[in-house]
Amino acid sequence: MRMTRLHAPTLKDAPRDADVQSQRLLVRGGYIRRLAAGIYDFLPLANRVLRRIETIVREELDRAGAQEVRLPMVQPAEIWEESGRWGFYGPELLRLQDRKGAQFCLGPTHEEVIVDLVRRDVRSWRALPLNLYQIQSKFRDEIRPRAGLMRGREFLMKDAYSFDADEAGASQSYDAMYQAYERIFTRCGLDFRAVEADTGAIGGSRSHEFQVLADSGEDAIVSCNTCDYAANVEQAELPKPEALAGPESAELASVPTPGQRSIEDVGAFLGLPAHRFIKTLIVTADGRAYAVLVRGDHEVNLIKVKRLLGATSVELATEAEVLAATGAPVGFAGPVGLKAVAGIVADHAVAGLRDAATGANQADTHCLHVDEGRDFTAVFADLRLAGEGDPCPRCAGHLRSFRGIEVGHVFFLGTKYSAPMRCNYLDEAGQERPMVMGCYGIGVSRIMAAAVEQNHDDNGIVWPAAIAPFHVALLPLQMNKPEVVEAAERLYAECAAAGLDALLDDRNERAGSKFIDAELIGIPWRISIGARDLAEGMVELKARTGGAAERVALAAVVEHLRTALAAARR
Amino acid sequence: MRMTRLHAPTLKDAPRDADVQSQRLLVRGGYIRRLAAGIYDFLPLANRVLRRIETIVREELDRAGAQEVRLPMVQPAEIWEESGRWGFYGPELLRLQDRKGAQFCLGPTHEEVIVDLVRRDVRSWRALPLNLYQIQSKFRDEIRPRAGLMRGREFLMKDAYSFDADEAGASQSYDAMYQAYERIFTRCGLDFRAVEADTGAIGGSRSHEFQVLADSGEDAIVSCNTCDYAANVEQAELPKPEALAGPESAELASVPTPGQRSIEDVGAFLGLPAHRFIKTLIVTADGRAYAVLVRGDHEVNLIKVKRLLGATSVELATEAEVLAATGAPVGFAGPVGLKAVAGIVADHAVAGLRDAATGANQADTHCLHVDEGRDFTAVFADLRLAGEGDPCPRCAGHLRSFRGIEVGHVFFLGTKYSAPMRCNYLDEAGQERPMVMGCYGIGVSRIMAAAVEQNHDDNGIVWPAAIAPFHVALLPLQMNKPEVVEAAERLYAECAAAGLDALLDDRNERAGSKFIDAELIGIPWRISIGARDLAEGMVELKARTGGAAERVALAAVVEHLRTALAAARR
Repeated sequence: MRMTRLHAPTLKDAPRDADVQSQRLLVRGGYIRRLAAGIYDFLPLANRVLRRIETIVREELDRAGAQEVRLPMVQPAEIWEESGRWGFYGPELLRLQDRKGAQFCLGPTHEEVIVDLVRRDVRSWRALPLNLYQIQSKFRDEIRPRAGLMRGREFLMKDAYSFDADEAGASQSYDAMYQAYERIFTRCGLDFRAVEADTGAIGGSRSHEFQVLADSGEDAIVSCNTCDYAANVEQAELPKPEALAGPESAELASVPTPGQRSIEDVGAFLGLPAHRFIKTLIVTADGRAYAVLVRGDHEVNLIKVKRLLGATSVELATEAEVLAATGAPVGFAGPVGLKAVAGIVADHAVAGLRDAATGANQADTHCLHVDEGRDFTAVFADLRLAGEGDPCPRCAGHLRSFRGIEVGHVFFLGTKYSAPMRCNYLDEAGQERPMVMGCYGIGVSRIMAAAVEQNHDDNGIVWPAAIAPFHVALLPLQMNKPEVVEAAERLYAECAAAGLDALLDDRNERAGSKFIDAELIGIPWRISIGARDLAEGMVELKARTGGAAERVALAAVVEHLRTALAAARR
Repeated sequence: MRMTRLHAPTLKDAPRDADVQSQRLLVRGGYIRRLAAGIYDFLPLANRVLRRIETIVREELDRAGAQEVRLPMVQPAEIWEESGRWGFYGPELLRLQDRKGAQFCLGPTHEEVIVDLVRRDVRSWRALPLNLYQIQSKFRDEIRPRAGLMRGREFLMKDAYSFDADEAGASQSYDAMYQAYERIFTRCGLDFRAVEADTGAIGGSRSHEFQVLADSGEDAIVSCNTCDYAANVEQAELPKPEALAGPESAELASVPTPGQRSIEDVGAFLGLPAHRFIKTLIVTADGRAYAVLVRGDHEVNLIKVKRLLGATSVELATEAEVLAATGAPVGFAGPVGLKAVAGIVADHAVAGLRDAATGANQADTHCLHVDEGRDFTAVFADLRLAGEGDPCPRCAGHLRSFRGIEVGHVFFLGTKYSAPMRCNYLDEAGQERPMVMGCYGIGVSRIMAAAVEQNHDDNGIVWPAAIAPFHVALLPLQMNKPEVVEAAERLYAECAAAGLDALLDDRNERAGSKFIDAELIGIPWRISIGARDLAEGMVELKARTGGAAERVALAAVVEHLRTALAAARR
């Protein structure tokens, strides 16, 4: 491709609304433009990146035995009612009516459609296992679209769905997809980690996220410094600590703490460290109030609370609800004498705690010398967020914290959709059974953004070679010297013959501008063709990843590049 | 691909709601399933066909210098308001609100989005011409989805948009796309015709449709038997006939025609042939009533009427409007003494007509001996539909009628969108000018259906080789004979090595079932591997297009096939 014919409008300045590097650089590099909140145009450069990712995804899924289909974006409400999600899925599901008033939604995911398809045609165990996938634009009406492509509303996704005769088969399908995902993200050149994850709105019993490691990632993940345990903090289990045992403390006392609400403020006011506090949160679980206790230096994990209570939804209580439950404004809740709640649940680290401080359920007042067991009790479970330094639940190691960008997610669904939607088959004995399912997503456009978050520098994007829009930029440095232009054109033709995608910067621009754009766009290699080098039969080859420029013979440079590219793709 | 692993659920019977052959065969062949009215799932076989078509489309558009992009499906109302189409586009535009109440639509076409994109980044004549395209699911909320994929609501489309500095450049872009389209449809193996067409809701000044010829086509087209003139009948011009001249007829008279409304009935009742009548239609053009006259054996072309009146919309009047305009119920309108209309327009063939019959603007009454000029007059123009045998507007030849399925449409838009949306550039003199545009659509999923309409027989689909899901079906006829299975497996491996897509029917089925499915699915060639032939080192090769099966040496059959395929693709 010639730069003069490529629509890649690069910009000096990032848009003011850009809140992450990938958005800044993809906009500045002429890859994307924002059409509306969370909705983007993908320009030719972005299309090239997406197509490379898609090719890798297709090759690996086909290799794993999955078959590509295309399912509608506009889905009738009926099937969502059958699965029970029409009511359950929140306002992220964009609902709409056709001209006749029939209810539809824009597909945020396709479990219902695929189950409807498979149940109509698959009747026998002989047709199983079956794994169908598609690559398609999806829409989720995020309340606060942000972070460019990472939390957009319309996005490109690969979704796959497996159908098996039994749990063992479904486990094999799950593992096959897990392995395909590892190959996909490896081939994309990403530094990623597979972590155990919560199943969220999709449901199911087992799930892994594939997280691209990047400081800007939305997700907190932990992994063990010793074994291979890794999990999203939402999901990360913590081992039950040794029960505390200590002498009974002094008599319960209350102390005025006017206007001091946070653990930090009260701690400073009373001169007590955070771990001496019992943090008490009032939550509403399916409409009923509960008190949740964690040690003052810990954070509550509401997903664990939800699981413990078996609730459909758990949210922090409103101010009014807190007042109703504790008799005090927000900031002064505590377990001692707390009655107006359905129950008190506490993290293991609270068990046996002595001489602690906590809210007194009275405005501007805290309790001191609180002993668990003597002054209150609770149902204990693992209820807190894991963090840096916490013990590993699987070995004697410790957890380390990372930030990650979720680019893939695999779910073991079981019969969550097949049972209510009667997606059944006849087994060898002629017995009707529900199929056992898995579903598997990859955020194709999010991979593009995550790759940029992970691979950029002050000058622009540094694409992994496998997903770069072009392999090499050819930069004739003096457009007014015919021998320079001719050499560049010859190289351009040679690259094409060698199967290398070259971008020839044939613009009548200064060398400096060409360097700037090639770096901003992030092309993995560049060949500078200058009159002085050329007089000696040489050109300059430089990798975008850094390192010194190499002088290479003009006649050998394409072969040189092919070797480098093959190495980078390995 | 192995048949036992391919999800291609073939059916014995067509669905009851199928109204065209392509839908019957694509459903029976396991290509598509209906999810909702006009909304289909595309199964693996269909995906393979669509991908082959997409590849041809991409190769030819890239060759013509167009660049692929991806634009959002969900589009904000603002840009449609800017272009003026938010109000103008009817209920086919599916409108929706996001969770914050902002107005959006599902893109039925992308002029607004692309103009918005280009105007933001392109400022100089140097960046022109520019041609951007995408392949994407589109949604049009058809009032009566029908004919399977041919008139669906969600469908796969390629849309391209060209931007030029002036009309001459835009004409070149138009011609380049026209030629690319000819190559695309030729490569797809379709018998098609490019015809002049109306510009409809897209607008612009010049347009061609690419029509796949098929008796089941929705569109009527005409083409000259002598020159290369061809047009949609909506658009087809007719030359102005010689003015009629004849003696004045007897005095105007009225005659009772109780309950006789149609030309057919009144003609039979009065014993007059259809061409002796003046057919009078009352239409409402932008809210005003007009009478439109054509000879009794001709049909009115409302698009020509609309163009003559310069109206935004022209519709047949309602019964009440007819009564108001003529004083009589529907069926008795005529031009004589007609006052309560804004004007009377007539087709050229009515000029100078003598001794005609027409409605008397009175219930159950017609006029006889009507002379144009003496008894009424009108504004004359070309207002009728062209048909078989009509004179060619370009030469002395005559028109022939065909039915066609529109699979492509190119529009010369001019500044219809760039002017109101201020998509301007600076010319070499620094003068700001609107870009001159063209837009170009291809119905990718419709090509699949049109190819089936044009290529099928009683046994199933007969795919053109270039877009078939597989090149060859390998049919081991006796699965219980190891030598048969081994030979089939060897051929399967040989095909893969030779770059041929083979479907190996490895099911434990009777030979008859394998033949039936291979023919239904429509694979261009099949190789039958039977024990008797095999004993002599032979297999049977048969083309789906018909003709006798050939006995070919097992060792030579793949090379044989490669040659046949190369010939079919030429």
